[in-house]
Amino acid sequence: MEITLRHIAESIGGTVVGDDQVLIKGINSLVSAEQGEISFLSDSRLKDQIRITKASAVIVKGLISLYQGPQLIVADPFLAYARIATIFAPPIPRFPGISEKAIIGEGTYIGKDVSIYPFVYVGRESAIGNEVTLFPGVYIGDKVTVGKGSVIYPNVAIMSDCIIGKDVIIHAGTAIGSDGFGFARDGDVSVKIPQTGIVQIEDEVEIGANNTIDRATFGKTKIGKGVKTDNLIQIGHNVVIGENTIIVSQAGIAGSTKIGKSVVIGPQVGIIDHLVIGDRVMIAGKSGVVKSIPPGEVVSGIPTMPHRLWLRTRGHIRRLPEYFERLKELEDRVKKLDEQIKKEQIG
Amino acid sequence: MEITLRHIAESIGGTVVGDDQVLIKGINSLVSAEQGEISFLSDSRLKDQIRITKASAVIVKGLISLYQGPQLIVADPFLAYARIATIFAPPIPRFPGISEKAIIGEGTYIGKDVSIYPFVYVGRESAIGNEVTLFPGVYIGDKVTVGKGSVIYPNVAIMSDCIIGKDVIIHAGTAIGSDGFGFARDGDVSVKIPQTGIVQIEDEVEIGANNTIDRATFGKTKIGKGVKTDNLIQIGHNVVIGENTIIVSQAGIAGSTKIGKSVVIGPQVGIIDHLVIGDRVMIAGKSGVVKSIPPGEVVSGIPTMPHRLWLRTRGHIRRLPEYFERLKELEDRVKKLDEQIKKEQIG
Amino acid sequence: MEITLRHIAESIGGTVVGDDQVLIKGINSLVSAEQGEISFLSDSRLKDQIRITKASAVIVKGLISLYQGPQLIVADPFLAYARIATIFAPPIPRFPGISEKAIIGEGTYIGKDVSIYPFVYVGRESAIGNEVTLFPGVYIGDKVTVGKGSVIYPNVAIMSDCIIGKDVIIHAGTAIGSDGFGFARDGDVSVKIPQTGIVQIEDEVEIGANNTIDRATFGKTKIGKGVKTDNLIQIGHNVVIGENTIIVSQAGIAGSTKIGKSVVIGPQVGIIDHLVIGDRVMIAGKSGVVKSIPPGEVVSGIPTMPHRLWLRTRGHIRRLPEYFERLKELEDRVKKLDEQIKKEQIG
Repeated sequence: MEITLRHIAESIGGTVVGDDQVLIKGINSLVSAEQGEISFLSDSRLKDQIRITKASAVIVKGLISLYQGPQLIVADPFLAYARIATIFAPPIPRFPGISEKAIIGEGTYIGKDVSIYPFVYVGRESAIGNEVTLFPGVYIGDKVTVGKGSVIYPNVAIMSDCIIGKDVIIHAGTAIGSDGFGFARDGDVSVKIPQTGIVQIEDEVEIGANNTIDRATFGKTKIGKGVKTDNLIQIGHNVVIGENTIIVSQAGIAGSTKIGKSVVIGPQVGIIDHLVIGDRVMIAGKSGVVKSIPPGEVVSGIPTMPHRLWLRTRGHIRRLPEYFERLKELEDRVKKLDEQIKKEQIG
Repeated sequence: MEITLRHIAESIGGTVVGDDQVLIKGINSLVSAEQGEISFLSDSRLKDQIRITKASAVIVKGLISLYQGPQLIVADPFLAYARIATIFAPPIPRFPGISEKAIIGEGTYIGKDVSIYPFVYVGRESAIGNEVTLFPGVYIGDKVTVGKGSVIYPNVAIMSDCIIGKDVIIHAGTAIGSDGFGFARDGDVSVKIPQTGIVQIEDEVEIGANNTIDRATFGKTKIGKGVKTDNLIQIGHNVVIGENTIIVSQAGIAGSTKIGKSVVIGPQVGIIDHLVIGDRVMIAGKSGVVKSIPPGEVVSGIPTMPHRLWLRTRGHIRRLPEYFERLKELEDRVKKLDEQIKKEQIG
Repeated sequence: MEITLRHIAESIGGTVVGDDQVLIKGINSLVSAEQGEISFLSDSRLKDQIRITKASAVIVKGLISLYQGPQLIVADPFLAYARIATIFAPPIPRFPGISEKAIIGEGTYIGKDVSIYPFVYVGRESAIGNEVTLFPGVYIGDKVTVGKGSVIYPNVAIMSDCIIGKDVIIHAGTAIGSDGFGFARDGDVSVKIPQTGIVQIEDEVEIGANNTIDRATFGKTKIGKGVKTDNLIQIGHNVVIGENTIIVSQAGIAGSTKIGKSVVIGPQVGIIDHLVIGDRVMIAGKSGVVKSIPPGEVVSGIPTMPHRLWLRTRGHIRRLPEYFERLKELEDRVKKLDEQIKKEQIG
């Protein structure tokens, strides 16, 4: 596919300075771009790369005199890059229609233009929306809904009764709706508490590979619209995650915790159960959250503290051996002073 | 299904105060329960909810005057809830018999009343007990035993020679019996050590989703009776886990470590190899265990210390910047005192 | 299989002292070995076990007078053990040829002596090398290459365009080539950045169970020759890992970070994006790496510091409550000294 720079500018917005008829066939980084590709400058530290790029056009925030070719001026070059890359991205490979080697249970509704690969299993009384893609090895339980346009990658399991919204992407190996971890103790024995709730995933959510999102004990575990999770994320039963929140890899959220909107949860963070994390909170990587956090705070550490405090604190931690020496020295000096004064008083 | 409160009391034990002929069709939390459902008060902080519940009966430890309907009095309302919920829980959906689209290897024994879904692969010379359920995408290797009544959820892999007990539940995507991580170094090259042992999982164990439990180098990795693991747990080769131990999500246990009975391992805990963790030890979330722990201890931190010490220590960590200022100020004051005294002596 | 000790010595190198015609049928630990098996002493702390072993021969570094049977003297008994165990290890069970219940896409090349189990899906225009084994539930996308002799265990997904080298092992449930975690923000909304690169895994790599290795945004995520990863590892887009590096379970490496050769990354380590970790660096378990690390360093802690410093620091952390008391006491004493001196001056 080749399209003119003008066409790109019209699609995503922005102003072309220079030849807007140049043909573009792809997008690439400044150093890797070849002739016919467009590139972008989203980080001013990479400015020097624009001198040597072979790109046939560049996306910039303001005109760059170092570059001779046509420039597409936009408010946010990185966002423009995402949108243009989407235009050029190869389509997701789709099986044409419903494979004879897939199993569709009784009473299940299948929409139009679906792609259901071999070795997909869909249970009874489920509903698979229009344009849904189910890759090989996908398991869909009974009474599950998968909304229009969603893509479920290989070996994902979506257990019974769960609800997946529209335009959701779930990457390989993820388990949605497995039982929450709930037991009552009878002496030493753990008695299983049936997990009879569901998982609801709203529209435009993207879930990474090998995530585990447990069904609720009662009611629902809910992943809000536009949430994006990275790989190997754990989400416990009855967790609620607000819209547009981002969860980076290997983080875990324990049961019944409520995460606000547009929260950013860093990699390997752990959040205990029954907390409330406010909107727009940012939690740095590896933090351990044991208390609720008001909206807008930025926190780090185990347990978490304000991020600014952590930045100062962590420098002190590595100087503890030195401080200890200084403390001992002070003790010695004070002891000597004490003795001197006593001697003088006697003297 | 509707049963009388009296029937429930007879099933799980306990005394009814009020109308024991009321019909119950389900169990729910105090706030969500509707007419015809029973609820429970297991946490006295929720006492106020009992005023507004629509539940047709409640399970309590002692008679609650705030509630007008029939009350089921039991020693442990939370445990009673677990048992009653089990009565009402919907059965696990089962494929009737052995699907024609499953593969069963030569010499494999299949018990009575099994449910083997399409796309299940069972190897040679294995034994699948009575009433076992194998969901789509389950892989069972050669010479594997799966005990009576066990439920293996979608896309679980149980590698050759492993032994799964009775009434075991394994959630989606878990790998049992993959190779332990063992290499000898030949200069820079890692030479694989064949992992020729097995994994043995005893009766009534429940394993979460996307766990990895490695086979032993020699002998066996062993998960004791009644152990419950949450999601994304790593268990290394030759680990032995005692009965009724609980392991919360994203924890990892390295090779050959021996965990006692009724231990509680918190989320994201890491335990290094070749340790011995005593019975009834509790390890708080995110801890790093680098030394063996005697029975009954409660520990936290990286590396672990007694939990009480950690609770005090962690408060001091965040005050390190303040302490450093106080230390510097003291140094200044002591220096001045020193000078004053010297001056006086000279004077 | 039974072979003479002499044959073993000839295969792996080493000198036999004693009867080199003894027949050996397997290898085992000193305590578990039975007659007919060979064992090994690789850790001098286990020397006492050699007295009680029933092994018919032992592998040692130097002659052990405590043991009466034949001894195989080698430079590195642990490495010799790995090599001999490989001789005796049972072969990986292989499906004979290509199952009729596997799907092979159009234009895909299949080499000789492959083993492709039922319920394997291979896309279009891929290339499966000679002697490759694909277990049930494996998904191979379009235009994927899998090199000669590689073994892909159940329910592994290898997404389109990825390149797997020769003699690679990938354990159950791993996802290779899922989308990297890349989004541009449009106000609160995350706009997906297409991940159009690939994953390349070089020869002799072993990847553990339930790993997630993301495809690059542009270009490739690259796992160098001889790398070994344990279970539940996360490797972000555009990460490059040098030859022979070892990554222990539940570690995570964020996007575009470059790891050197022969690095050892401990369990539950997190490494942020865009760093450079030098050759032969060792990173202790649970560390949080937020800065690049020069070659050869040994680091620990969150954030990392030299391991020797961490060993001293961590002891001080647990003594913080005590230090705080000593600091307060000093402050009191200095205050008193101050007052005394003032009094004297006045006096």
